[in-house]
Amino acid sequence: MKAIVKATAGPGASLVEVPEPQLTAPNQVKIRVLATSICGTDYHIYSWDAWSAHRVRPPRIMGHEFAGEVIEVGSEVTELKVGDYVSGESHLVCGKCLQCRLNQRHVCTNTRILGVDVDGCFAPYVVVPEGNLWKTDTSVPPHLACVQDPLGNAVHATLVEEVVGRTVAVLGCGPIGIFAVAVARAAGAATIYATDTHDYRLELAKTLGADAVMNVTRTNVEDFINRQTDGQGVDVALEMSGAPSAIQQAFRICRRGGRVSLMGIPTKPVELDLAEEMIFKGLTVYGIVGRRLYETWNTMQSLLASGRLNIEPAITHQLSITEFDKGMALMREGLCGKVVFLME
Amino acid sequence: MKAIVKATAGPGASLVEVPEPQLTAPNQVKIRVLATSICGTDYHIYSWDAWSAHRVRPPRIMGHEFAGEVIEVGSEVTELKVGDYVSGESHLVCGKCLQCRLNQRHVCTNTRILGVDVDGCFAPYVVVPEGNLWKTDTSVPPHLACVQDPLGNAVHATLVEEVVGRTVAVLGCGPIGIFAVAVARAAGAATIYATDTHDYRLELAKTLGADAVMNVTRTNVEDFINRQTDGQGVDVALEMSGAPSAIQQAFRICRRGGRVSLMGIPTKPVELDLAEEMIFKGLTVYGIVGRRLYETWNTMQSLLASGRLNIEPAITHQLSITEFDKGMALMREGLCGKVVFLME
Amino acid sequence: MKAIVKATAGPGASLVEVPEPQLTAPNQVKIRVLATSICGTDYHIYSWDAWSAHRVRPPRIMGHEFAGEVIEVGSEVTELKVGDYVSGESHLVCGKCLQCRLNQRHVCTNTRILGVDVDGCFAPYVVVPEGNLWKTDTSVPPHLACVQDPLGNAVHATLVEEVVGRTVAVLGCGPIGIFAVAVARAAGAATIYATDTHDYRLELAKTLGADAVMNVTRTNVEDFINRQTDGQGVDVALEMSGAPSAIQQAFRICRRGGRVSLMGIPTKPVELDLAEEMIFKGLTVYGIVGRRLYETWNTMQSLLASGRLNIEPAITHQLSITEFDKGMALMREGLCGKVVFLME
Amino acid sequence: MKAIVKATAGPGASLVEVPEPQLTAPNQVKIRVLATSICGTDYHIYSWDAWSAHRVRPPRIMGHEFAGEVIEVGSEVTELKVGDYVSGESHLVCGKCLQCRLNQRHVCTNTRILGVDVDGCFAPYVVVPEGNLWKTDTSVPPHLACVQDPLGNAVHATLVEEVVGRTVAVLGCGPIGIFAVAVARAAGAATIYATDTHDYRLELAKTLGADAVMNVTRTNVEDFINRQTDGQGVDVALEMSGAPSAIQQAFRICRRGGRVSLMGIPTKPVELDLAEEMIFKGLTVYGIVGRRLYETWNTMQSLLASGRLNIEPAITHQLSITEFDKGMALMREGLCGKVVFLME
Repeated sequence: MKAIVKATAGPGASLVEVPEPQLTAPNQVKIRVLATSICGTDYHIYSWDAWSAHRVRPPRIMGHEFAGEVIEVGSEVTELKVGDYVSGESHLVCGKCLQCRLNQRHVCTNTRILGVDVDGCFAPYVVVPEGNLWKTDTSVPPHLACVQDPLGNAVHATLVEEVVGRTVAVLGCGPIGIFAVAVARAAGAATIYATDTHDYRLELAKTLGADAVMNVTRTNVEDFINRQTDGQGVDVALEMSGAPSAIQQAFRICRRGGRVSLMGIPTKPVELDLAEEMIFKGLTVYGIVGRRLYETWNTMQSLLASGRLNIEPAITHQLSITEFDKGMALMREGLCGKVVFLME
Repeated sequence: MKAIVKATAGPGASLVEVPEPQLTAPNQVKIRVLATSICGTDYHIYSWDAWSAHRVRPPRIMGHEFAGEVIEVGSEVTELKVGDYVSGESHLVCGKCLQCRLNQRHVCTNTRILGVDVDGCFAPYVVVPEGNLWKTDTSVPPHLACVQDPLGNAVHATLVEEVVGRTVAVLGCGPIGIFAVAVARAAGAATIYATDTHDYRLELAKTLGADAVMNVTRTNVEDFINRQTDGQGVDVALEMSGAPSAIQQAFRICRRGGRVSLMGIPTKPVELDLAEEMIFKGLTVYGIVGRRLYETWNTMQSLLASGRLNIEPAITHQLSITEFDKGMALMREGLCGKVVFLME
Repeated sequence: MKAIVKATAGPGASLVEVPEPQLTAPNQVKIRVLATSICGTDYHIYSWDAWSAHRVRPPRIMGHEFAGEVIEVGSEVTELKVGDYVSGESHLVCGKCLQCRLNQRHVCTNTRILGVDVDGCFAPYVVVPEGNLWKTDTSVPPHLACVQDPLGNAVHATLVEEVVGRTVAVLGCGPIGIFAVAVARAAGAATIYATDTHDYRLELAKTLGADAVMNVTRTNVEDFINRQTDGQGVDVALEMSGAPSAIQQAFRICRRGGRVSLMGIPTKPVELDLAEEMIFKGLTVYGIVGRRLYETWNTMQSLLASGRLNIEPAITHQLSITEFDKGMALMREGLCGKVVFLME
Repeated sequence: MKAIVKATAGPGASLVEVPEPQLTAPNQVKIRVLATSICGTDYHIYSWDAWSAHRVRPPRIMGHEFAGEVIEVGSEVTELKVGDYVSGESHLVCGKCLQCRLNQRHVCTNTRILGVDVDGCFAPYVVVPEGNLWKTDTSVPPHLACVQDPLGNAVHATLVEEVVGRTVAVLGCGPIGIFAVAVARAAGAATIYATDTHDYRLELAKTLGADAVMNVTRTNVEDFINRQTDGQGVDVALEMSGAPSAIQQAFRICRRGGRVSLMGIPTKPVELDLAEEMIFKGLTVYGIVGRRLYETWNTMQSLLASGRLNIEPAITHQLSITEFDKGMALMREGLCGKVVFLME
């Protein structure tokens, strides 16, 4: 089969012929990939940043977001059968460490990631354990079903505490940020603010349900939020950018007694005025990584299948896997929502 | 002024001339009532059932649900001023008992109720403490603003735990039941089932957002839910009828590990198969009374003002207060959603 | 080996020669049993009640509570090695049903129980999956380590919500009831009341930390609790008897806004005054079954290993497995706390 | 009467004759002070730091921690009577802002503090609103009852999530730090680590229940915790020092999926490695200020009155109010736990 492979320790990746993966354990399932999408992590591996150089061991088939059809099941697989329509969790967790035993599998000590530590899904076929697959309603088309892994990050970050009737600010409107806007909207948030540096992304945020958007290069976010909220600040701030200035802002715009979810990854330490902006305000702050296995998937799948959550506008590009470099260029420029590859 | 007064210990009530209420404490506020609505409790007092005969001391101006305009404020009132548009909580709590001190004011040991224990709001004017009023956005018209007290019961019962992405069954489609349907919908419930004995009410439930409705006189609810949920049952059952059979059913249709909110008031003890239907299933069950003061009001007001929650179709009748007996007749027949009296 | 076997469908059980169990899957572990204890369930199977006749398929090695030493591990076992000291969870869960995926494994739809559905641990050796074992600190001797499964029920029931600084009533002082007393004490409950019909058990409850005990055959529990709590009732009621009268009492003695955990299994439906005793009081009620896998085990093990939780006095009898019938006689009479069999 | 007064805007304070305070509102209570204690805030006002110069308007009677006897009640006081034994919350909250209405009174927007914004309790008499007083069991002597306000900070920080069976690290063993050790112990924490720079304070921490203490000037805390916890880190880190290095350490020693409470106040912004130490670890972090009104008081009072919580060793000095300067010298040197003034 032809797959996107990071062949050597350096920038780039290419579509090359590799052997089709085979089941190697009785709990595994082989999937024919129908759609797969690009995560920021894929872009990091493609451009070969410091993290990738440290973590990834080429050659490696890239990709960890997918939707597909079950075409073969191992002897211990009981809940899935050939023909089932699935998407999957990209974190392969050990199930045995303290965190796994305490149902905090999203912070498993021994997490391996599809397309990073093991061969991934930018390919016609991928093999994953049954436990990582989530049966998906056929009403959800492949180009939406394949983004459930990153959508799950947004669901996790947004719904770690309830948002119904709350004012919510989403800082950073990359794909997960705009997903968070849509999730907050579906979950009954009363007012949703969104910020970014790109008008293109802010337009997407509006389309996905933001009530007001601010380009931080032109608008003083704190003043704006203050005016809109009678000086209170928002109930919930969701930091999705990783930019230090946005992280600091998340704390500043959050009301006394409010909640902050930090999901964007800053590349270096960040200075915070903990006394004034966190302790005296009595904030609750969550570090968000991955998805709750599998509470997040259950909520997400129900929202998608019922039509309560509409993320269609977030999928701005549907390409062929042969257009891989084009997809990566879109990621670099940031002028995209989610970029999906449709297989065949 | 002319108000609806329960004049004597017996059935009925009438529109009679009474003195306009005056501020008697510095924390009080005088309201010109714009709209007021009928609660089941009002009907009980009107028909003079055993509970009413025990609790109410005539003469008493009836009514506890209202929206209005502030026309006078006491010297210690600081957050409201003449001209403000408000609705109000009907429970006058003591603020001093253990429950009040522990922020469980909805179960205050010394609760007095407007229109039950003190004079109420079926009148052009009503006087209440500032602490019981909730400023309401002027975008919410009086005929909707006045039903926030009962809507709050629905918000409390539905959102005592999150419903986003959950399957929810509402048993009993009286006004609070159909409100619960709307609240569950606004809060992102994935699928909402509703049951009742009247097709009229089930139609209302559909209009307010139910995905499927069942007339229990014709449909086997448990079979239906079983089929719809692959034998699992629903995540959340909201019992709003008080009928023993529906209460039992709430437990039976709830999935292992699910949640039941009991809000409907049965008139006598109910037999429950606790072993099979609650303990082995590991259910969490909430007894729901009143509203969380004032978390519920805050959530509710945000949902209404933002337009996320649309309860317009639940207000089936808007009458003049001179049509009071007609309103009570509607309540008796059950062929109504919420009945509102517009003042003037 | 010689094991206690329910040989035929009828009362009794006996110590007979059976083949030593062997590993049959790569995730299994073989344990040399050091101590094992009697659960009420074992007594039901021994006396062959209706539930047993329906569920158990003889011949079956009985027993599900144990502590022991690992003597053999399958090829996929990674966290345990020969020589490790362990106890184990008796519920073999599927890991694949909705409940398991949502981290509600204690209500797994496909639960099989050791000594009930598969061969158990009233034997020198038992084989269980690695995932069911919990490494135990060697400071906890076998006669205490083996009771962690039922102790876990008490931990689950007691700590489903916090008890620190709370007044707690434990209704029913069988083994799990007195464990609950000890757990509440270790977790900082302020005042602990315990009720039973046997003075013997109430003495045990006092030894394990109850501040006041009441024999329900002589004391009016509700009056007593009312006097002790200024008419409020207790914050938390833990129902451990399954007696309908005690279940009703649990609701009656619980304060407005309080919490009830129901763990005792009534043999038939129970009539409850839901209006007055649950809804108007705004109670939260938990049906408790099994243990949270493995949050409960983690908490329990930490409490035992640190010495914060002392359950030594609850182990009233340590017998040889050859005294099995004597153990069952003690269970029938109720004049015991926990009965442990020391192997060899 | 003679009281400790900050007479002018500058360092120092002195015991001078001032008029006895009188009731000025019907909800007030006059207290004869039996014992009062020194908070770090008092020391800041005494030494007249930047915060004090900005906030305090002399002349002002200092002090906000007290226990005493009710000697006069206003006409609207209903729950207290002359002769009652009380302690009190130092935060005078408005009851009307969003936070107060949402039962987050500890972050009331309009908080005024006794001895800071209004006259305090370093005096024979003090007047406070009924709503700020908490009836205290007479079994708790005045020198313990008076420290409930700061003890409440420790209860709030420690029990914002449960600690039963958890490993807990307390960073900073000033008075609130050692209280936190005692609270964690009373609430069933399995292992308690404590750190400080002073051996004197670490000895106090041990006396109050710490299992292991580390002087950070001699011991590598992270290495020690790593060894003790098999490389996991602690479940809960309570930061009580405000030192930037300790705040950073709190995050580093907390296990994946663990919890951090930040209560110590840093004097400037702190740099945090949010990616590695918070987000990837999926931590939950609480900013802690004041006490939950009045959940914290209820829990605290129950723990003290029942004898479950023993803070006696934390009261290292009991002085006469005439020894005020000596008390302040002790605070400056840090060689003390809690310093109490016994009145008369």
